[in-house]
Amino acid sequence: MHTADPFLFQLFFIFVWAKLFGEAFERMRLPAVLGEILAGVLLGPYGARLVVPTDAIYAIAGIGAIFLLFTVGLETQPKDLISVGRTSLYVALAGIAAPFLFGVTYMLLRHHPTHEAVFVAAAMVATSVGITARVLGDMNLLQTVSARIILGAAVFDDVLGMIVLAVVVGLVSSTGLEWAQLLITAIEAIGFALIMMFYAPRVVKRMEPGMERMSTQDAPLIIAMAICLGLSYAAVKIGMAAIIGAFFAGLAFAEYSPRWNLRSRVFSINEFLAPFFFFSMGARMNMGVFDSKLLVSAIVISLLAIVSKLVGCGLPVLHSGWRTALKVGIGMVPRGEVGLIVALVGLQMNIVSESAYALVIFMTGITTLVAPPIMKLAFRDEAVNEPALTERRSTAM
Amino acid sequence: MHTADPFLFQLFFIFVWAKLFGEAFERMRLPAVLGEILAGVLLGPYGARLVVPTDAIYAIAGIGAIFLLFTVGLETQPKDLISVGRTSLYVALAGIAAPFLFGVTYMLLRHHPTHEAVFVAAAMVATSVGITARVLGDMNLLQTVSARIILGAAVFDDVLGMIVLAVVVGLVSSTGLEWAQLLITAIEAIGFALIMMFYAPRVVKRMEPGMERMSTQDAPLIIAMAICLGLSYAAVKIGMAAIIGAFFAGLAFAEYSPRWNLRSRVFSINEFLAPFFFFSMGARMNMGVFDSKLLVSAIVISLLAIVSKLVGCGLPVLHSGWRTALKVGIGMVPRGEVGLIVALVGLQMNIVSESAYALVIFMTGITTLVAPPIMKLAFRDEAVNEPALTERRSTAM
Repeated sequence: MHTADPFLFQLFFIFVWAKLFGEAFERMRLPAVLGEILAGVLLGPYGARLVVPTDAIYAIAGIGAIFLLFTVGLETQPKDLISVGRTSLYVALAGIAAPFLFGVTYMLLRHHPTHEAVFVAAAMVATSVGITARVLGDMNLLQTVSARIILGAAVFDDVLGMIVLAVVVGLVSSTGLEWAQLLITAIEAIGFALIMMFYAPRVVKRMEPGMERMSTQDAPLIIAMAICLGLSYAAVKIGMAAIIGAFFAGLAFAEYSPRWNLRSRVFSINEFLAPFFFFSMGARMNMGVFDSKLLVSAIVISLLAIVSKLVGCGLPVLHSGWRTALKVGIGMVPRGEVGLIVALVGLQMNIVSESAYALVIFMTGITTLVAPPIMKLAFRDEAVNEPALTERRSTAM
Repeated sequence: MHTADPFLFQLFFIFVWAKLFGEAFERMRLPAVLGEILAGVLLGPYGARLVVPTDAIYAIAGIGAIFLLFTVGLETQPKDLISVGRTSLYVALAGIAAPFLFGVTYMLLRHHPTHEAVFVAAAMVATSVGITARVLGDMNLLQTVSARIILGAAVFDDVLGMIVLAVVVGLVSSTGLEWAQLLITAIEAIGFALIMMFYAPRVVKRMEPGMERMSTQDAPLIIAMAICLGLSYAAVKIGMAAIIGAFFAGLAFAEYSPRWNLRSRVFSINEFLAPFFFFSMGARMNMGVFDSKLLVSAIVISLLAIVSKLVGCGLPVLHSGWRTALKVGIGMVPRGEVGLIVALVGLQMNIVSESAYALVIFMTGITTLVAPPIMKLAFRDEAVNEPALTERRSTAM
């Protein structure tokens, strides 16, 4: 429309540049998401200032985050959680606990406020298994024991990451660090997760005949989207982050996702919205904050993020030999959108400072860049010399 | 996110109520779009004031309009334009000219400003064939001669409607009603249309091998969306409406739409965005302006909209008998999203007053409600007594 002139320009500009950077990164076998973020860093208000996203763009980015986490939820099949076995559960649990503890400890030692320390640590916990799956897929190793443990653990990892975020947001929203409050929030979050995983799918199942009688085409997609928006709003209302609601809405529909073709349809929406989210994420990163002190912190946090996953995820499988432990550990190292969104939530709540936000983006980039070459070394003994012909981007990332 | 609380609430509220009204209308065999608009009228700022859309919602509604017209373009195959034959072309041309002339004349007689008269008349021209196709489909009559003429004319109709809008916007953007200027704008618009229909698809074809080499998944969808946003912005830059660019972008990709599955993927995006557009459209309609004088105008405009299509579209086929003329004429009566968007563009440019805007929405509703029962009568002689099993919603509406 005529009045939407700068808005239209920003839509066009951001979409094109985010996708171009994404394509360039893909060609270098790097995740497109990092390229889209880099586009925001370089072209945004702290970079070349070619575009300063308006509130409308940030609003669209927010919807992008909601749909992104909705997709992550859709890809997490509750029945997989039961079938992947105890090893994966232990790997996921220890792989969540170790980075959180390492992160909180370091941030407190560096005299960051407790709330900020907790948020940065929470941003360090969630693995983004997309890159790992891709590397293993390219090497034809998705059927190995280590790969199965990693992919199984990744399912728990997302759910646990969301619970950690819910607890952290609930915690900082309350007056102080009270243990009773912490316990209640944790029980609430775990209860919410369990209900959405095991009870909600039954409700969805009962809705099915009704949906097929509806006159509106695409009733399942529309109802899923309505519930996603509703739970996002409800999550904010009860003091969680919107994306937690979106993720759990995805969980509730995960079982029916293939049947109703939900994933691919929501994926089309993501193709449009997600670039605005990742670009905005980069546009919010002030490169100017990187003095030598912060750079040291960033490197230490990145190392802690790597070591903590190696240790946390490796220990539960150490009985199978150090090589397996290394494989599983390194496979769980890459962080992704969940951690980034945690940092963004903190930034928007004015709990995470600009420099801590930059720290998390730096850490995400490093873990993503470092893992693939080490994985190739670690998995060398199992490598099959066949041409790669595999599923790429098996998760949202 | 936390700060987006009212925004999230509006997203959820508008999406759910628009879809509920849409579903209710569908069950009454009425177009869902009218229900979504009515939701905005009743619940919006001029109704129950349950929600007063923020700028962010209007921004999303604007993107919704762009994707909507992009879809209309994707459904308009340039090669169909050649194959439907001369009768359909004449039906479309006369069916555009008559409502425009009738509309302009009446509005000027009622002492509306020239610019406003031209806009309201432009909003009266474009047929929305979705409802017609559905009624004919339900009656198993899509293969009759009259139906083929209607569906053929509808293809031209969209393109011609866009050219009229382009000329009208160009006209009011210039200093006055100059014939030389009018001619230049008309030539520009027709040239733009011809290039996008016949030259652009070749460019797209040449891009194809490149797209398949790209690392980004979904390269065709992404490139199509980027071009849609780019042309929307370009259209505004050269003094047209954004949706004209979006429509022509759709035309350029129409031929490849089935192959790249573009339509169904953009349709998923529409499922999310369009309700915000139609709800906002209703939310902008001030029911308070309907005094007895405006009501008379609204009824006269609606009658003119009906009669002008009956006459304009009926005359070119009168040689086949008055019954065929009636069938073709009544089939072309329903107006839809294109007319609504024309009125909205006028409102946003401060050329169309609140009351004239209400006039157009009223007219759109009436033409849509009146046509189906008359069609059923007119087509009674050809009716096949078989259960309906046909494509519903074959166009965007």
